Amino acid sequence: MEKRFVYADNAATTKVSDKAFEAMLPYLKESYGNPSGVYSLGMEASRGVLGARQQVQKAIGAAKVGEIFFTSCGSEADNWAIRGAAKLGERSGKRHIITTAIEHHAVINTCKDLEKNGFEVTYLKPDEQGFITARQVEDAIREDTALVSVMAVNNEIGTIQPIAEIGKVCREKKVLFHTDAVQAIGHIPVDVKAMNVDMLSLSGHKFHAPKGVGALYIKGGTDIAPLIFGGSQERGRRAGTENVPAIAAMGEAITEAVSGIEEKNAAVKALCEPIIDGILSQIPCSRLNGSRENRVSGNLNFSFRGIEGESLLLLLDMHGICASSGSACAVGSSEPSHVLTAIGLEKATAHGSVRLTLNEENTADDAEYILKVLPEAVKELRRRSPLWQRICENEGIEDYTKE
Amino acid sequence: MEKRFVYADNAATTKVSDKAFEAMLPYLKESYGNPSGVYSLGMEASRGVLGARQQVQKAIGAAKVGEIFFTSCGSEADNWAIRGAAKLGERSGKRHIITTAIEHHAVINTCKDLEKNGFEVTYLKPDEQGFITARQVEDAIREDTALVSVMAVNNEIGTIQPIAEIGKVCREKKVLFHTDAVQAIGHIPVDVKAMNVDMLSLSGHKFHAPKGVGALYIKGGTDIAPLIFGGSQERGRRAGTENVPAIAAMGEAITEAVSGIEEKNAAVKALCEPIIDGILSQIPCSRLNGSRENRVSGNLNFSFRGIEGESLLLLLDMHGICASSGSACAVGSSEPSHVLTAIGLEKATAHGSVRLTLNEENTADDAEYILKVLPEAVKELRRRSPLWQRICENEGIEDYTKE
Repeated sequence: MEKRFVYADNAATTKVSDKAFEAMLPYLKESYGNPSGVYSLGMEASRGVLGARQQVQKAIGAAKVGEIFFTSCGSEADNWAIRGAAKLGERSGKRHIITTAIEHHAVINTCKDLEKNGFEVTYLKPDEQGFITARQVEDAIREDTALVSVMAVNNEIGTIQPIAEIGKVCREKKVLFHTDAVQAIGHIPVDVKAMNVDMLSLSGHKFHAPKGVGALYIKGGTDIAPLIFGGSQERGRRAGTENVPAIAAMGEAITEAVSGIEEKNAAVKALCEPIIDGILSQIPCSRLNGSRENRVSGNLNFSFRGIEGESLLLLLDMHGICASSGSACAVGSSEPSHVLTAIGLEKATAHGSVRLTLNEENTADDAEYILKVLPEAVKELRRRSPLWQRICENEGIEDYTKE
Repeated sequence: MEKRFVYADNAATTKVSDKAFEAMLPYLKESYGNPSGVYSLGMEASRGVLGARQQVQKAIGAAKVGEIFFTSCGSEADNWAIRGAAKLGERSGKRHIITTAIEHHAVINTCKDLEKNGFEVTYLKPDEQGFITARQVEDAIREDTALVSVMAVNNEIGTIQPIAEIGKVCREKKVLFHTDAVQAIGHIPVDVKAMNVDMLSLSGHKFHAPKGVGALYIKGGTDIAPLIFGGSQERGRRAGTENVPAIAAMGEAITEAVSGIEEKNAAVKALCEPIIDGILSQIPCSRLNGSRENRVSGNLNFSFRGIEGESLLLLLDMHGICASSGSACAVGSSEPSHVLTAIGLEKATAHGSVRLTLNEENTADDAEYILKVLPEAVKELRRRSPLWQRICENEGIEDYTKE
């Protein structure tokens, strides 16, 4: 079998698209002015930022261009939304936040920090496929709830949440609603009005813009304080010289990302469905985490009992396949994924997990290659795994690796 | 007189250097992996970040590479240092911060926000040239002082502060010391050990790296909390996927910036000294703001009574000269510069100010051109200015614009 290079970690980061790259160049080279400059060179940069702001506005269906605020990344956007809403809530004695047990760490760790500072946080538990219901949110809302934050698409298992319904509940109860849509753009339709959200986080590098740029949508009239104080950039709400080249690239990239979603999804699904079927049928004691139906089409999250996900990633890398064991942001931690344990996996099973995230740039050859390499790699690791042998003995499973 | 393009706003932002641009390219194109990825593509990116971290470490004389934390900009670094120190101080009941009246807005506005939250802030007043003394800091330090923050070089008038002396006082008094060195790198020697600082802010785009990247030096053992919570990037202290291309570029740019400072300064000084002499002798009722001697060599900040700085910028732009009226970050504000009023200028005089910041890329022809255009522009504006006429009448000055 010939070695291929297969990038299957698109939920971690994506390749910069040609259009996005081309959009950066003028602002890295001749139009290097500071957008705050009153001279022509500054105004060129300022126009670049405005153009991108309009593109983002259009892509997410915001009512006004002034509702888009550029940040340095999705994590900053999440931190800003949550801390800003907390500060706002505090003014009227509201010190309760509702979120979920399967949010990105940018949300969870900000909430944990707020807990140290007098806030109470409800972490809603998903069902075993990773779903949160509007009813759960409704039941959790209290008089002193300052914010509800539920992610649109889970970064590890790809579950798509009923954001519009949750947003409707929040609107009825007059509670601010934020969604981390970092993994949603380009995969499902994102429309801030249809979704009933007050704030929505974006990250450019998840949809073929470069790293170093994100955005927070803040609905007009939502008066949250800045996270980064200073100059009057972003209408006085996010200080720091604008990252003009990356912002311009993000405008192009989001325009590309939201166009033809159905076609892209159909193509990606055609790659991924056979992988799911193949893996589950070829590898004993394997499972697909999350919902088979209601997930973003490129996300494949498998657990294989008896092995370590980290070792599997190493073997996959040796075969040219880039994958991850869950959130890229949790690397270095020995804890199993908080998402997988929240949907009910035992720690040992959660440890034996791998996430492959494909997109429209992957090919049928990639899919075929994954289907050849992955079962062999799991078999190889199990052959050497005392844990796997114990499982076989305890549960009376015939050890297929000994054949 | 032939029209030239003269970029004289290098304190606002600088052109990306060829080396910095080249350093970005691999990480925008083929090596686009997430540095947290365990596969080769991720490790390439991770090595890029480490290389840049070592370059920054070396450039500022940090003891360990782990003392460098990349941020999205200088403003974020300032916000983080101050808010982090405030949070740390709070734990032991320290709710007093010392800074100066002429800091960048990223420092001042963060301090103002802390004042709303139970902190007391002492804003030290500079002398009429913009200097703060170690003695002033010493006198202001109290039992409950959590942090001293004094900028190394003022962004508007270029004054160089006695950071090493101030740092010595802080160390003796066991108070954390932060300096915003955003305008210092490449202009004066910056060495965190010699300067006795615990934290130091940097901004890439001020020294020919692209926009969208900065850094905070945090001395080992200084346990400030994150500003942006989330994943485990930057040793768990600054969440968000690393802006790898910009970080790599910053490493190259800072290496270039700190090499041959004396030669660069000599060259820039040779351009600027004749401009200062020429302007002060050719334009009546003009003044150079800040210290003539102890300033960074490329900073020229002039006030011209009887005119509006904004109109002057417009005229300069029409002649191809990019300059600013002070901090680029304060654009859109009708208030005069807080720096110029702090050093004693009347509001009206402060309004008639312009900042030109040259660097080693400017030429003798640029300097000559400025010396031709600026006096004519001031004269033209004064000719039409009722304020100037009133000044002449009230003070018995002969109106040279009527000649």
